Amino acid sequence: MRLATVRTPDGTRAARVEGDHLVELMAPDVRAVLEAGPDAAAAVAPTGVVHDVATADLAPVVPRPDKVLCLGLNYREHIVEMGRELPEYPTIFAKVAAALIGARDDVWMPPESVEVDWEAELGLVIGRPVRRASAAEARAAIAGYTVVNDVSMRDWQMRTAQWVAGKTWEHATPVGPWLVTPDEVDDARDLRITCDVDGVRMQDARTADMLVTPVEVVQYLSTVCTLVPGDVILTGSPAGAGFGRVPPVYLAPGQTVRTAIEGIGE
Amino acid sequence: MRLATVRTPDGTRAARVEGDHLVELMAPDVRAVLEAGPDAAAAVAPTGVVHDVATADLAPVVPRPDKVLCLGLNYREHIVEMGRELPEYPTIFAKVAAALIGARDDVWMPPESVEVDWEAELGLVIGRPVRRASAAEARAAIAGYTVVNDVSMRDWQMRTAQWVAGKTWEHATPVGPWLVTPDEVDDARDLRITCDVDGVRMQDARTADMLVTPVEVVQYLSTVCTLVPGDVILTGSPAGAGFGRVPPVYLAPGQTVRTAIEGIGE
Repeated sequence: MRLATVRTPDGTRAARVEGDHLVELMAPDVRAVLEAGPDAAAAVAPTGVVHDVATADLAPVVPRPDKVLCLGLNYREHIVEMGRELPEYPTIFAKVAAALIGARDDVWMPPESVEVDWEAELGLVIGRPVRRASAAEARAAIAGYTVVNDVSMRDWQMRTAQWVAGKTWEHATPVGPWLVTPDEVDDARDLRITCDVDGVRMQDARTADMLVTPVEVVQYLSTVCTLVPGDVILTGSPAGAGFGRVPPVYLAPGQTVRTAIEGIGE
Repeated sequence: MRLATVRTPDGTRAARVEGDHLVELMAPDVRAVLEAGPDAAAAVAPTGVVHDVATADLAPVVPRPDKVLCLGLNYREHIVEMGRELPEYPTIFAKVAAALIGARDDVWMPPESVEVDWEAELGLVIGRPVRRASAAEARAAIAGYTVVNDVSMRDWQMRTAQWVAGKTWEHATPVGPWLVTPDEVDDARDLRITCDVDGVRMQDARTADMLVTPVEVVQYLSTVCTLVPGDVILTGSPAGAGFGRVPPVYLAPGQTVRTAIEGIGE
């Protein structure tokens, strides 16, 4: 199943992807569908309104998650490229919900930054509450996968040792186009992930290169605090971001960033 | 005015402090009062239920804020003590709401950490939406001040360069006992802040030692994203935390931590 959140004149609505259509559901967003219970998604009644997938006004898959937690330094090749050693523990940081946008929304380019960079990432959405999850519980807690671009204002990220000031700019982190439930993903541990800027391929990797797997990051984060339905977890970005290039390359107003993950969407 | 959030058999309620009593208001929590508008707090009707201040079951002042943003390395003496240079920019990180507890709640001591440490901090609560705030707008956006202890699991904080894994443990960050509106605070830039552990004074400083003032941190954070009513901002901790001692000292189960700020509460 594929679940999205669409914007309508009456606010957002959850929707189910059926072929070329998004069928609106009787729930305000995907988080509300997930909160109704792990098996509720298939049972939520349609509103009778249908959108064309190609033109729907997509909100972030979860517009108001309780948490957005992020992994850094999680692709081996990217770590080696940066001249770092493979880390012993996952690097964790957080974003605020105000950063999230829909898959087709404009990234707001802040006049305060001249180093706006891309980071294609596999996103997870949590479907049931978990704390100190076993591997089996963590696997069962993953409601689905989505495509995220952890757009980063590098000048602000690197101002201090803590990255958050460059990672949580308003209206700058696309999450979408939809959530794909695990039964429709062949193997989240080996998917191709790419990022193109104005048609030029900038990132091209496989999730098999991740150090910490989706199940492991859910276990790790659930040690610290309870994850709840709708929580969004970013799993880190592969090599090829702009700041690692020689010379560095950053986004300019008007450019198009296309982030894609095999079997999930773009 | 002093505003708190109390737990009742029917869920949380906002309340106003009147002498030795907390007068329940027709709003579920302080965030809801602030969302009603900058002048609404005085106008929200009482429910007729009154609690004894001394025994009320206090929730975090804002139980479910949209954001919890934190300043690190913000007291000059603490920075010098750590052997660091004074920074050019504020160090920003984020917590998740699940970390927050009421002023009198037990801190949950996780079995996964053996380095649970204290950090007395002045907390701000935002009262109106602001983005790219001028100094005057930032000042007007501060609904009030509160007392926070940014309890930190140092072993987890220091596992990687990003602190969040040690900063956002569930049920471990007291925020309270109430919010005090700026008109009742003589000068938030020069208040005594202390932290006692089992009656032994561990931190004792004045907010005058802060590098970035409350107004300045609101301006800085509002550059990155819109701050909204109920957002909680921590302004950093002075010298005297346990990990800076020789040898380091950490909290043990059963100890009592008392965090106090002059004119605000404890």
